[in-house]
Amino acid sequence: MSEITLDIIQEIAQPSPSKIILLVMDGLGGLPHPQTGKTELETARTPNLDRLAATGICGLTEPVAPGITPGSAPGHLSLFGYDPVKYTIGRGILEAVGIDFDVRRGDVAARGNFSTIDEAGRVTDRRAGRLSDEKCVELCKLLDGQTINGVKIFVRPVREHRLVVMMRGEGLAPDVSDSDPQKTGVPPLTIIAHSPAAEKLAKVANEFLGRAKEMLAKHHPANMVLLRGFSQHPDIPTMSEVFKLKPAAIASYPMYRGLAKLVGMDVLKTGKTIEDEIQTLKQNYGSYDFFFVHIKGTDTGGEDGNFEAKVKVIENVDRLVPEVTALNPDVIVVAGDHSTPATFKGHTWHPVPFLLYSRWCRPDDITKFSESSCASTSLSHLPATSLMVLAMANAQKLNKYGA
Amino acid sequence: MSEITLDIIQEIAQPSPSKIILLVMDGLGGLPHPQTGKTELETARTPNLDRLAATGICGLTEPVAPGITPGSAPGHLSLFGYDPVKYTIGRGILEAVGIDFDVRRGDVAARGNFSTIDEAGRVTDRRAGRLSDEKCVELCKLLDGQTINGVKIFVRPVREHRLVVMMRGEGLAPDVSDSDPQKTGVPPLTIIAHSPAAEKLAKVANEFLGRAKEMLAKHHPANMVLLRGFSQHPDIPTMSEVFKLKPAAIASYPMYRGLAKLVGMDVLKTGKTIEDEIQTLKQNYGSYDFFFVHIKGTDTGGEDGNFEAKVKVIENVDRLVPEVTALNPDVIVVAGDHSTPATFKGHTWHPVPFLLYSRWCRPDDITKFSESSCASTSLSHLPATSLMVLAMANAQKLNKYGA
Repeated sequence: MSEITLDIIQEIAQPSPSKIILLVMDGLGGLPHPQTGKTELETARTPNLDRLAATGICGLTEPVAPGITPGSAPGHLSLFGYDPVKYTIGRGILEAVGIDFDVRRGDVAARGNFSTIDEAGRVTDRRAGRLSDEKCVELCKLLDGQTINGVKIFVRPVREHRLVVMMRGEGLAPDVSDSDPQKTGVPPLTIIAHSPAAEKLAKVANEFLGRAKEMLAKHHPANMVLLRGFSQHPDIPTMSEVFKLKPAAIASYPMYRGLAKLVGMDVLKTGKTIEDEIQTLKQNYGSYDFFFVHIKGTDTGGEDGNFEAKVKVIENVDRLVPEVTALNPDVIVVAGDHSTPATFKGHTWHPVPFLLYSRWCRPDDITKFSESSCASTSLSHLPATSLMVLAMANAQKLNKYGA
Repeated sequence: MSEITLDIIQEIAQPSPSKIILLVMDGLGGLPHPQTGKTELETARTPNLDRLAATGICGLTEPVAPGITPGSAPGHLSLFGYDPVKYTIGRGILEAVGIDFDVRRGDVAARGNFSTIDEAGRVTDRRAGRLSDEKCVELCKLLDGQTINGVKIFVRPVREHRLVVMMRGEGLAPDVSDSDPQKTGVPPLTIIAHSPAAEKLAKVANEFLGRAKEMLAKHHPANMVLLRGFSQHPDIPTMSEVFKLKPAAIASYPMYRGLAKLVGMDVLKTGKTIEDEIQTLKQNYGSYDFFFVHIKGTDTGGEDGNFEAKVKVIENVDRLVPEVTALNPDVIVVAGDHSTPATFKGHTWHPVPFLLYSRWCRPDDITKFSESSCASTSLSHLPATSLMVLAMANAQKLNKYGA
């Protein structure tokens, strides 16, 4: 198959009034329940999704490549049409967008741990006894707001021992080593610049860690900070640039809002439930031509090993499908960023069911939205990045390629 | 899947007396008729194609990639085995081969418009009121045959306001900007060289346009020429070089003869009908080992939105299939360069049905040549470039790869 780069898409994409809704059920793909032989999706009663599947086309997406289990970032990037091997998102940046931090191009983010060091300066606990969220917030406030060599330092709590350190200033390059030794019994590492351009950042980060050690000295067990995954906003062209879309994201969880922001989507304010999200979709339907709606519950059910909970979330989504179809969008895509089978209790490499509904679908003979039916179509092995191209084609937002 | 480059094919291809016939129904793929739910191919009575499908293998080709609607050039290049993203054909060259102009390597072609400018030199009509074919011929004769800086200029009519300007001489590189501003109210643009190597061409083209303005001054509304899409013969290895074939093209329409010529096929003189084309095939059967037979009517029916006309062309082809099989070729491929559903009235991105018949096919269970049956096989998602490799393999024209 020819490789379709974003440059090619950018060349043939054209703005149009047609509308695309991409409904992502996180971790949608499943594995059979040992008692029934049916997956979560196959167990759920989904008359509305089945009706969409019957009129549209179905298949399985390969989020990255066969056998590769994607993290949340690659799983979503590929659904947004970006090759997740070409466009990678650093650990620090992912943590930062995951707490709704407004990451600007040029900022450098690092993932941090509060940790414990002994009198000789050796790390004895990389997680400082998993301190409480409250303590994390308190200690972040203590360290936050410093300026070193003209670089402003933001320190933000994540959860337990986890924090984000964000550095904002001129001339920061992120190719530096970690201070986190990833093991105990040794001192934290000095951060080293891997290029001359990164020397400023290394100096600032080492100075910050030196100060942090002093400021935390009396806060045992959280008497040190370890940093890793220094990274910058990925150099990703926005969806408006590539696809000529006006895209909006509707997601209850900050991580997914952040991922959407990284590709240039407007993030819409929404509530905690799926109903809230659909309400937000309806309220903003006139203002955008692409909507990414993110459902977290399917993944949570899978991660928790709670088969029944995942089934319930799918059924809940199905009940709301008529409100989506009533908007009469040109294209509806229902997909997942990866599989999270409840039996596995984690992300897996299994391809993920999708359906695409538009008036221009050449019908397959699928009448039920399920892993097994999706595996029987001609799109049973579709690169997830192609799904976005297919959605664009069905919305008639792509010109002919070549004369 | 490993990427099989033309270098690899060239290494393993071997000349042999076996024969391949590639029968291309342009725009073959369709969409269901709203009343019957059947595509054009599914509606047509095709007992002979069905018989070939039953003995051979079937599937769907992906001409470029999922969701990408191919123009005629990429659609055919991929059927000829050339990656249509790697090998692209410039607008000017395509126009030139489309009027049967004998394009030589080194020539530069541009697509031209007769257009109207006002007294201030601003474009007021990019198409000069769509002048008549006769007027176009007359004005092209006026401009044709000049020599500028040792570069010979050929000016040829296409249709209405459309013309081709071909420049032949030493040291011409085509990376120059267009003179066509693509809008009215502004003057034509000066052609600018994008590299030092292209400076000669830019100078010659600007001089030509200056002269054209003078020569056309009294021919309002066609008092100016706009040029765009400067391009050269693509640097494509011939089918003889890559596949070790002696290939011939049989096509009623000049565009497809031209595309075949670009990959080194001999173009055989033929008539206007499918019957003429099959006659030409029979007459020349002894002299070549690869035949590309192009049927235009399927695409025309689709473009016109004439479902029934497209069905009739398919049935007409089917009636002639026994004359093709009677030649007893080693491999028959029936395919399309893209889909042109009559309901859509234009090229689309949908994959295209194909069948491949040879004595070495591992049978599938298909007994009817149709989109839906082709979608049910293991080749329901075949890159179109792979079809040529499969044809070569079935004709036993490819050696083992690797020891």
